[in-house]
Amino acid sequence: MSGLSTEWAASTPVTTAPFPRHLVSADRLTRAHVETLFEQAEALRHAPRAETAQRWRGAVMGSLFYEPSTRTRMSFEAAALRLGLHVVGAENAREHSSAKKGERLSDTLRVVSSYVDLLVVRHHEDDALEAAAACSRVPVVSAGTGSGEHPTQALLDVYTLQREFGHVDGLRVSLFGDLRYGRTVHSLVRLLTKFRGVEVCMLAPAGLELPETLVREVRAAGITLWAADSLTEALADADVVYQTRVQAERLPADQRPTAGPVRIGPAELAQLPAHARILHPLPRVDELDPAIDTDPRAAYFRQVENGLFLRMAVLDRMLTETFGEGGMV
Amino acid sequence: MSGLSTEWAASTPVTTAPFPRHLVSADRLTRAHVETLFEQAEALRHAPRAETAQRWRGAVMGSLFYEPSTRTRMSFEAAALRLGLHVVGAENAREHSSAKKGERLSDTLRVVSSYVDLLVVRHHEDDALEAAAACSRVPVVSAGTGSGEHPTQALLDVYTLQREFGHVDGLRVSLFGDLRYGRTVHSLVRLLTKFRGVEVCMLAPAGLELPETLVREVRAAGITLWAADSLTEALADADVVYQTRVQAERLPADQRPTAGPVRIGPAELAQLPAHARILHPLPRVDELDPAIDTDPRAAYFRQVENGLFLRMAVLDRMLTETFGEGGMV
Amino acid sequence: MSGLSTEWAASTPVTTAPFPRHLVSADRLTRAHVETLFEQAEALRHAPRAETAQRWRGAVMGSLFYEPSTRTRMSFEAAALRLGLHVVGAENAREHSSAKKGERLSDTLRVVSSYVDLLVVRHHEDDALEAAAACSRVPVVSAGTGSGEHPTQALLDVYTLQREFGHVDGLRVSLFGDLRYGRTVHSLVRLLTKFRGVEVCMLAPAGLELPETLVREVRAAGITLWAADSLTEALADADVVYQTRVQAERLPADQRPTAGPVRIGPAELAQLPAHARILHPLPRVDELDPAIDTDPRAAYFRQVENGLFLRMAVLDRMLTETFGEGGMV
Repeated sequence: MSGLSTEWAASTPVTTAPFPRHLVSADRLTRAHVETLFEQAEALRHAPRAETAQRWRGAVMGSLFYEPSTRTRMSFEAAALRLGLHVVGAENAREHSSAKKGERLSDTLRVVSSYVDLLVVRHHEDDALEAAAACSRVPVVSAGTGSGEHPTQALLDVYTLQREFGHVDGLRVSLFGDLRYGRTVHSLVRLLTKFRGVEVCMLAPAGLELPETLVREVRAAGITLWAADSLTEALADADVVYQTRVQAERLPADQRPTAGPVRIGPAELAQLPAHARILHPLPRVDELDPAIDTDPRAAYFRQVENGLFLRMAVLDRMLTETFGEGGMV
Repeated sequence: MSGLSTEWAASTPVTTAPFPRHLVSADRLTRAHVETLFEQAEALRHAPRAETAQRWRGAVMGSLFYEPSTRTRMSFEAAALRLGLHVVGAENAREHSSAKKGERLSDTLRVVSSYVDLLVVRHHEDDALEAAAACSRVPVVSAGTGSGEHPTQALLDVYTLQREFGHVDGLRVSLFGDLRYGRTVHSLVRLLTKFRGVEVCMLAPAGLELPETLVREVRAAGITLWAADSLTEALADADVVYQTRVQAERLPADQRPTAGPVRIGPAELAQLPAHARILHPLPRVDELDPAIDTDPRAAYFRQVENGLFLRMAVLDRMLTETFGEGGMV
Repeated sequence: MSGLSTEWAASTPVTTAPFPRHLVSADRLTRAHVETLFEQAEALRHAPRAETAQRWRGAVMGSLFYEPSTRTRMSFEAAALRLGLHVVGAENAREHSSAKKGERLSDTLRVVSSYVDLLVVRHHEDDALEAAAACSRVPVVSAGTGSGEHPTQALLDVYTLQREFGHVDGLRVSLFGDLRYGRTVHSLVRLLTKFRGVEVCMLAPAGLELPETLVREVRAAGITLWAADSLTEALADADVVYQTRVQAERLPADQRPTAGPVRIGPAELAQLPAHARILHPLPRVDELDPAIDTDPRAAYFRQVENGLFLRMAVLDRMLTETFGEGGMV
């Protein structure tokens, strides 16, 4: 909650690799990119509202959601408006757009990118966006794809760790809930590989474990990762508990787990260290007891607010790559 | 049509009770609050467009409709844009938002209120919004709830009476149509209790009478209220005829009234005093004959326009409570 | 690609007939109106972004789509935002608006036009909009009606011809695809009657020919129009190939053509003159091979971009008729 410490800012490496043209996967970002985004999020948080609202006046963002997600869409659109952008959007493009008439996503992006300066796209398929982005005339930011990547969610999660602890290196993170289909978890563990000495302990219902390919991938990238022996272990030694919802809507009825995920309530909180933090990408159903909302370790509503500033930083970065520091003019 | 008379403005009492943080029910408003809103609506109506469009530049309104209502949503959003606000919205939040994933309304409001400065919410349940608003970080304005309250509709109805007659005290209002499920009527009669000497005469199809609890409530608050003996009585002695549509979509097929509501056309108009006015919350189906639209007593399209200015006044009031008279800066 | 030549600009006739209050059909436009719009589109294309973004600051456009069309809606809304307008919109008004409660379109337009300065409406019926527009308090622009008119599409098509060839008079246009239900084709051939010496050659699958009444109408207006004897004829002598998609969604399953439309790919391109151009209103399905996208004769993505500027010109024209050259003030 201390913001970025001076120490941390001083150790920020110089960005050398150019920022990727599209932000479809967190993989393309270097640690330096990530830290630059966090610094900019912090700067935008503290800048006067009236000033940021002038920053990209006259620019237009397209917001194309093939899978409705009011929450993520509103977060991106509010971030855009706070930067002075205007927004044209489709909250249910899969049903309402020319996708229904058989148009390829690459054609849609090429057409819509003729109208706007930046595109935010959520898509229901895992891999469609990466290829289609190449046909866009303007930068494309993923707002989540299928059960795959959700890069800005991972960024805001790690930004929250940075703000809550003052650092990310060396944190021990316990992942709870649906680690198989939860795309936020996939993007998160990939992004954590950019940091040093992170340990990840997993507690998932049977059948909802982290996919084996992803386990191998993040281990190869240097993360220590293991399945918890017990709830007590997952709680007592954690710096961070990252709880997630079971994405029941992605599972066939007969594959839904009979044993739900562990619910975190006052009893579980009692086993958690005083310095630890609980994060959750939200929405929650039953896996987080509202009784713990007022505990200072419950960081999930601060995480939401961090998301607004992190997304402002991402949009600002992409537009600066296009138009330069001077803005639209 | 004369605007607010000087006399009326002079008799406005000083506002002492603070304006409620959320506007979910018209009950929380004092007569002084109501009159302050009418004065502000009048001021905004006559202010130069370019000036009001600067008033809340940089602020963001969230518009969350769990029950689609293009007309009310557009009225609120246009009111916001005319004040210089930007808008992020969901026109069908029940289907598209995390409500579908099982999220509580209180969580949704807490999250979305992290992105915006003001929330306008329509919800399909009667009582959910009142409790959930407490979790919002910003003021919440109801845009109608279930078959319950619709406070800004009641305000714009009474604002129309004020503009058409120069006063509200002492008016005799005949309510026509669906008085049981029509939420605009419920909010209206409650709001009329803030005024002196109002008389309410009711003419409803069998089964669609005003709920008995509401009858008792408004009588206890000092309104004279009775069922009309005849159509002639309801017309000939009225200052105001408030016609409403039968909300057939809220009724099971076998409970829809066989006898429709009274249709007001040229023959009914002939029985109405020359000084009277016809109001209707719209949309209309068959209960108002378009043949009477050009009669000066038909006030329903002026009522629509009044709604824009009244909603501007409401949004302006809520934002002033938050940010002070000086605006965003 | 040369923009408007000086010669062309010099020959522009003086506009004498007033611009129509509503743009529901291209028929109401004179050649002078059309050329004025093209000039304004060109001017807006070359004006600084920051300047056009100030042009209609404070004005509000309503965007009412009874038939969802993400692409056309985004084009209109982006055009509005680029001119500094704000937008309130409904992307699926047929399902979500009071149309479902039985409200007439004329009432909806009268109400919504109380909130905005300009209305863009797409409607699923062929003839409803023309009559309803008379009830609007503000100018109405059609964004397509049923299988009938789509006037701004026709304008952007012809604007593309003007830009690609430097003139429209005397062009030979080959129409491919669904000429029966494709509303863009209907509006296009009607608009081409405003020009001199245009020849139209048609190649449609059996059952999808241009309606006989329209054939008679455009012939009476001076267009030479015939069915192609062969694919070779339709290609080899064309200045313009205007390809369209079969609107399968408008046809009963048993009336869909068994033989699809001619697909234009590298082989067909080989038969096309070097100076010719291929246009398509998009979206495409299979009738345009993406392999030809990079050929300079493929003008369809330039056509999309032209649409943005043409729609800016239309909105600008309608607002100027209302408020005068000085803007909102």
